[in-house]
Amino acid sequence: MTRIKRYPVAPQPEQFQAALAARAAERRSEDGYVFYRLRTDFHGMPRGAVMMEGHVVPAYPSVARVFALAAGVRQAFREPFYAEEKIDGYNVRIFRVGEALVPVTRSGVVCPFTRDRLPDLLDTQALNSLFDAHPDLVLCAEVAGKGNPYMPTLIDRWGEDVQLFCFDLMRFGEQRFLPVAERRTVLERYDIPQTPLLGRYSRDDLTPLGEALLRLDSEGAEGAVLKPPADGLRVKYVTPSINLTDIVSDAALELELPGEFFTHRIVRMVMALRELGQRARLDGLAGELGEALIQGFNQALDDVEHGERVGRTFRVRLRHASSCDALLAHLGYRSSTIDVVEQSRRWDGSHYELTFRKIFRKSSDRLRTLLGGGPVFD
Amino acid sequence: MTRIKRYPVAPQPEQFQAALAARAAERRSEDGYVFYRLRTDFHGMPRGAVMMEGHVVPAYPSVARVFALAAGVRQAFREPFYAEEKIDGYNVRIFRVGEALVPVTRSGVVCPFTRDRLPDLLDTQALNSLFDAHPDLVLCAEVAGKGNPYMPTLIDRWGEDVQLFCFDLMRFGEQRFLPVAERRTVLERYDIPQTPLLGRYSRDDLTPLGEALLRLDSEGAEGAVLKPPADGLRVKYVTPSINLTDIVSDAALELELPGEFFTHRIVRMVMALRELGQRARLDGLAGELGEALIQGFNQALDDVEHGERVGRTFRVRLRHASSCDALLAHLGYRSSTIDVVEQSRRWDGSHYELTFRKIFRKSSDRLRTLLGGGPVFD
Repeated sequence: MTRIKRYPVAPQPEQFQAALAARAAERRSEDGYVFYRLRTDFHGMPRGAVMMEGHVVPAYPSVARVFALAAGVRQAFREPFYAEEKIDGYNVRIFRVGEALVPVTRSGVVCPFTRDRLPDLLDTQALNSLFDAHPDLVLCAEVAGKGNPYMPTLIDRWGEDVQLFCFDLMRFGEQRFLPVAERRTVLERYDIPQTPLLGRYSRDDLTPLGEALLRLDSEGAEGAVLKPPADGLRVKYVTPSINLTDIVSDAALELELPGEFFTHRIVRMVMALRELGQRARLDGLAGELGEALIQGFNQALDDVEHGERVGRTFRVRLRHASSCDALLAHLGYRSSTIDVVEQSRRWDGSHYELTFRKIFRKSSDRLRTLLGGGPVFD
Repeated sequence: MTRIKRYPVAPQPEQFQAALAARAAERRSEDGYVFYRLRTDFHGMPRGAVMMEGHVVPAYPSVARVFALAAGVRQAFREPFYAEEKIDGYNVRIFRVGEALVPVTRSGVVCPFTRDRLPDLLDTQALNSLFDAHPDLVLCAEVAGKGNPYMPTLIDRWGEDVQLFCFDLMRFGEQRFLPVAERRTVLERYDIPQTPLLGRYSRDDLTPLGEALLRLDSEGAEGAVLKPPADGLRVKYVTPSINLTDIVSDAALELELPGEFFTHRIVRMVMALRELGQRARLDGLAGELGEALIQGFNQALDDVEHGERVGRTFRVRLRHASSCDALLAHLGYRSSTIDVVEQSRRWDGSHYELTFRKIFRKSSDRLRTLLGGGPVFD
């Protein structure tokens, strides 16, 4: 694996050719344009970097996590820093090539859902004005809400459909983000929705940040990303409750997800409750945690005993029938672990309401084997 | 890794020499005898096999686990089978070489604790009579109770000290166990304590076995091992409650143990409760599970915040001071993850009561890093 970079990495155009020769990149045609994508980390270049018509779109880097807020801030920031809400959705980079507005997922694949819904997510005329003035900009955004086709969303914070929140701007071929204040100003000018700013904080007084996080926690938000004004290390810190929400979401997959998915969230939740002065909630959350871990799996067992497979139902809205097909194909594409099964498609006058089920093959097969009495050497 | 064998594997003497040349085996002197031990799986020979004075002691094989009792029995047994209680302790093989009674652990190391306590665990005169009559026998036994130096024991089933339960007999160089009935008869004749027999059951009527398992569950027992009368696949099945007991024991190690340690136990517990007609207990156990997962880790955090390391206190009894030293050295020997620290040693007229603490370095270091605000890319 490539050593993790703390900034957006933009390979040189000729590096895509080398990656292509080594099958680390793929070449596709999108919107009539030639499109390269790094499928995997390769010689220091990260998966998800994209090149289209000679424009290199940097990969969106991982953000380091801190488990202890105050100590993490002391390590990361000497100067005042910004905190913005961390939105719990999927990450998408949006840019313009020729006339086309192109949204790509974290792994660098064109996202058929975002492409279809872009006019609902933001004012595309305003976005085009932004790209007219700054043609080399890349919007980095989160799309969140119950209509998210990629992940389950139990919390009502962003409504039944989806919303977009821009949280960064990059430029073609440049290995840095725009400074926070500059980005916020630019996006406000063009009326592009962006992630809520919690404030500007100093390491010497974190009380207001703690209060902001407790408010986010009570609202079901995921957490915060702390950013220096310009370049430098950024860190994320999540609210206590989101950990439990994630466990509730995925407890049916106890035989599929790495066990650390669950244990690390317990660790984070306990550490955050202690640091944010919420120890009194430990007992109450213990009951909810145990209930989630037991009932989620119990439900999966019920499903399999009734002849079903372990799965999850999604209901999303799309403007075009062709997007429904493209999304279903995209979700099941080359997946060795997931089957995607359409259940219904209904036109409501403005959108198709598409209902589909993601089937988790590994969980389903393992459960069937175990219920069938298969002996396991563990 | 070697393909897992379902029977005891006894390498040929010359294979130990080959393994030694490849550093897969080690050669030591024990009790004045030359002792070879397979340190790792090697060319189909399993870790833990031992050779002493030309006698080959087979490795004790893994026992397959079934998560579903009735279906597992249907897969494993056509004919009636025996069920014996599975004792929750450490596995030891005991044999005689010359005058010496030698106990070795699962990994083939001479166990200083068992060697010291053997006269307390069984009648060594009777054992010598058994070996006089059958010099090539190898006793396979579990040593369990609160005085177990290898693992924490929360349940009182076997008292404050330790007890030994023989559950198999093998012979030097032979790749099979003695048939169950023959073994039970031989051990009874020589008054060697053995694991309780639950009964002989048929796949066509598992109600009595289910009742026996519920009784074991209420008594805090680990479970049952199901064995064909002679050769063939054996399987183990654990009680619902032991899974929760294990989680309570080790919740402080959420950053050290594989996450599957926890999730697989939840899976087993839920499946066993359902199969044994105990669904009504799911809700109550959910509270205990959540409490264990949260409070175990919360306690570890308290320890580390108070400048301590994550650890666990053991109190064991030994007859000789030299055994105390040997045990402490054995526990810390070559361990990259554990420090062993003696806390006290007190002579009570018949035994030393040795108190020591096992320190979990990985958990301690990780917690300190996280509490120190170290950023983590996860």
